[in-house]
Amino acid sequence: MVLAGPLLRVAAVQMNSGGDESANVGAATQAVEEAAASGARLVALPETFHYLGPEGERPGHAHPIPGPLTRSLAGLAGRHGLLLIGGSILEESGDPGRCYNTAVVFSPAGELVARYRKIHLFDVNLPGGPTVTESRCYLPGEEEVVVEVEGLRLGLAICFDVRFPELFLRLRERGAEVIVLPSAFTARTGADHWELLVRARAADSQCFVVAPNQCGQHAGAGASFGHSLVVDPWGHVVARADEDPTVLVADIDLGRIEEVRKALPLRRLGSADC
Amino acid sequence: MVLAGPLLRVAAVQMNSGGDESANVGAATQAVEEAAASGARLVALPETFHYLGPEGERPGHAHPIPGPLTRSLAGLAGRHGLLLIGGSILEESGDPGRCYNTAVVFSPAGELVARYRKIHLFDVNLPGGPTVTESRCYLPGEEEVVVEVEGLRLGLAICFDVRFPELFLRLRERGAEVIVLPSAFTARTGADHWELLVRARAADSQCFVVAPNQCGQHAGAGASFGHSLVVDPWGHVVARADEDPTVLVADIDLGRIEEVRKALPLRRLGSADC
Repeated sequence: MVLAGPLLRVAAVQMNSGGDESANVGAATQAVEEAAASGARLVALPETFHYLGPEGERPGHAHPIPGPLTRSLAGLAGRHGLLLIGGSILEESGDPGRCYNTAVVFSPAGELVARYRKIHLFDVNLPGGPTVTESRCYLPGEEEVVVEVEGLRLGLAICFDVRFPELFLRLRERGAEVIVLPSAFTARTGADHWELLVRARAADSQCFVVAPNQCGQHAGAGASFGHSLVVDPWGHVVARADEDPTVLVADIDLGRIEEVRKALPLRRLGSADC
Repeated sequence: MVLAGPLLRVAAVQMNSGGDESANVGAATQAVEEAAASGARLVALPETFHYLGPEGERPGHAHPIPGPLTRSLAGLAGRHGLLLIGGSILEESGDPGRCYNTAVVFSPAGELVARYRKIHLFDVNLPGGPTVTESRCYLPGEEEVVVEVEGLRLGLAICFDVRFPELFLRLRERGAEVIVLPSAFTARTGADHWELLVRARAADSQCFVVAPNQCGQHAGAGASFGHSLVVDPWGHVVARADEDPTVLVADIDLGRIEEVRKALPLRRLGSADC
């Protein structure tokens, strides 16, 4: 199976994760199976899909990577022959008070092939809320990640990273064609910025962006905006979810990437094209 | 007169410039006077407001800076006590075949206080048009410009520069509070990208963006999108023109800059705030 044919069916899983890990993992598994049944070959879960409770309790829900949770996801990818982005997982760091927020990528052969630790942590204090201080519970990552899986070059970013265009430009420089952005973007800032920024990052980097978001109220962890997106390298919305949990499926034409980059040359075409 | 009070009335002049320089300069002068009469203290003209004809003929319309055209604009600024951004002017380079595309800034005292030569030239070849090759008639600039005028820190960018977020981040780093973006953004790409990118650059840099655009058909130089914009540091549209020549006036609250940067800290607050 070649993933990087011109047409690729992708799925962004929109979830309403909460404090019950086994319920969250069950819902994620079911959504991935639904996506596979719909013919999707690339499936992406949202940020911290397995636990979205109060900040202070997140490090207590951290997992080793690899470990039982990633082995279960790897099995799911292998069973269905999917390129699976296991959204992000709270990853043990050695520091009991803080964990990493880590996106993981599984090949269709069922192997863990990449991990990306969220670089930009969300510390905000908006008048009228929300106040979020991720740096209290997370350690920041330091490495940008582009991974090639079966000919498709995938860049990774997580949620608040979307406010840093320079990260997306560097992913493009490293050859990214599709950037996956697992998110739990808040309802408050989402209404003003979610679609604006996801579309802008796609247009800036001339990559597809697949952005699965959390949605709805999370016990002790605010509310997320939903409206998961798939955006093309011209900045057009290919598919958009509403505010409820769903599996957003879209067909993307990978040929658009070179087409857009040739018509409107902003950057070198990407390492493999130079 | 202090420009940088919390409230500042700004005007973005939307023009339909063509090949008749004296008509264009007359229209610009009249628009600036209209803006002054409406109480605007910062007035910005669009890209190459004085000549918008075929690419090949532009170097023949280049001016020395300083020279008669900038002296006339300086007089206009001084007479009305305005911070005037003379859109951009085709600037003599010494090379008869190519000129600079240069934004000029005049203080309310009637002095030429800054110039910015467009860095990113628009070379595109869109299926179905337009095909534009600015590098045939323009030389690229090399220097980023932020200028402080009466306490207001102004960053400069021109049209196609809007596709390069890194420029706006560097202007922010150098202390920009308001970025002026004189443009002749094409009708074709404008429908897809103008508002998206102007809003994104404001949200990315947490600066106001004042973006006067050309509009309508230009003889031998395609069509521009109009829809000039004033956008706040949160990415909200403060004012938006339609497609016809107009003077777009808006009141901006400079207090929003620090408010947004404190609520959502993305970067250092800017040199003068550190």
